[in-house]
Amino acid sequence: MHISTSLLPQPNLNATDTDIAIVIDILRASSVITTSLANGANQVITTSQVDEARALACELPQKPLLCGERGCVVIEGFDLGNSPADYRAEVVTRQDLVLTTTNGTQAIEVASAAKEVWIGSFLNLSVIVRSVPCNARIAFICAGTDGSITMEDVLFAGAAVTQLEKRYSAQVDDGSRIAKQLWQSWFGPDRLPNPKELAEKLNESRGGRNLIRLGYEADIQWCAKIDSAPIVPVRMQKSPTSFRCKMPDNRLEM
Amino acid sequence: MHISTSLLPQPNLNATDTDIAIVIDILRASSVITTSLANGANQVITTSQVDEARALACELPQKPLLCGERGCVVIEGFDLGNSPADYRAEVVTRQDLVLTTTNGTQAIEVASAAKEVWIGSFLNLSVIVRSVPCNARIAFICAGTDGSITMEDVLFAGAAVTQLEKRYSAQVDDGSRIAKQLWQSWFGPDRLPNPKELAEKLNESRGGRNLIRLGYEADIQWCAKIDSAPIVPVRMQKSPTSFRCKMPDNRLEM
Repeated sequence: MHISTSLLPQPNLNATDTDIAIVIDILRASSVITTSLANGANQVITTSQVDEARALACELPQKPLLCGERGCVVIEGFDLGNSPADYRAEVVTRQDLVLTTTNGTQAIEVASAAKEVWIGSFLNLSVIVRSVPCNARIAFICAGTDGSITMEDVLFAGAAVTQLEKRYSAQVDDGSRIAKQLWQSWFGPDRLPNPKELAEKLNESRGGRNLIRLGYEADIQWCAKIDSAPIVPVRMQKSPTSFRCKMPDNRLEM
Repeated sequence: MHISTSLLPQPNLNATDTDIAIVIDILRASSVITTSLANGANQVITTSQVDEARALACELPQKPLLCGERGCVVIEGFDLGNSPADYRAEVVTRQDLVLTTTNGTQAIEVASAAKEVWIGSFLNLSVIVRSVPCNARIAFICAGTDGSITMEDVLFAGAAVTQLEKRYSAQVDDGSRIAKQLWQSWFGPDRLPNPKELAEKLNESRGGRNLIRLGYEADIQWCAKIDSAPIVPVRMQKSPTSFRCKMPDNRLEM
């Protein structure tokens, strides 16, 4: 196994080097996509632009839920913002979702060169680790915020690299080593923290402090619930980019 | 004080946000520039391209030493490679140097938007920390290798952020927090490691393993000699970019 970690989306990814790109935007796009698919959404289509999301909503055969944020706040006229707790089963089951967020989308675009694109969050950490084939070349792509590194994304990469290295003999790059060292310096190599411990660290990150300032502290606690949504969102379609749910037994939920 | 750390050169730096950009290419361009100016070189002019270096050599009034590497190896027809030990006083005193290296130059270019550009290495760690004005907005720019993060550059940023936070009340970004956590997870918050301990960590980094493979292990030990060349290389001229020596008492050596 080869593991690389980009602490920000770097446009040098290519399909030869990367079997699976795992996109990380812990606060909150990754957590929203994971939650909604775990709660029965049919698919999540991601777009960079708000207008693109609106246009897609008109084109799809079944009217989708329009979802997303700008400046962390729900977009005018949209059905849902970027708080994962709002993506309850009774709201999203069998629905198509069109999602546009500030930073997650750019990371998904950078990842698009890889053969497969998955979405990683603390909510599906262990199933991600169990689902990676032992000989894969994988790339963790941290979304960051407005072109700057955010700690919560790097922390997830560190948790995943730690778990993967326990299962497999892996060659890791320096980005992965730094992420792993960050994770282990707080939580050690062996155990997973409880959600309260993890939320304390997420609160300190750039993304965390920003959400607290805007009144979204409950979202951080949600995003820290490790393994609460054990499914893998997998890109099923490139244009428009659409994610569906991969179950723990690798059966694709279609 | 505001401190940001880019783990790779990011082109979003601007003069409004940044008083001093401190460029870090521990293995080995930063260490070469620091060593040569500490050993009495008149100035170090940096260029991106080998041809540019050769052209400059013809234009300068005094014939300079041509210095640098491609693929870690001395460039054909050049006087010196990228091993700091070769930049002895008897070789460089009162000489102009023209230096071109693979990764350091790109970082210097990104840094060029800042009001001041300094060069940081373990050889001048403490004097860098002492020389930063208490209210400055500073940006550490890690050079990395071929677009990928290298741990040794991030480690230096972490050491510097740790020392700066002991002296000043500083606002730091998540890149700086990650670098600091990496440093402190190995060496703690209070002490500086001895060169042997530090070299052990540099040996494990991407840049370190690459140099060992090519037979340059002695260079790593040199680059780990903390505070052995207590001067600050400061950009004196933008085009071509030229660095001269700033002494610990802030007197510029001209």
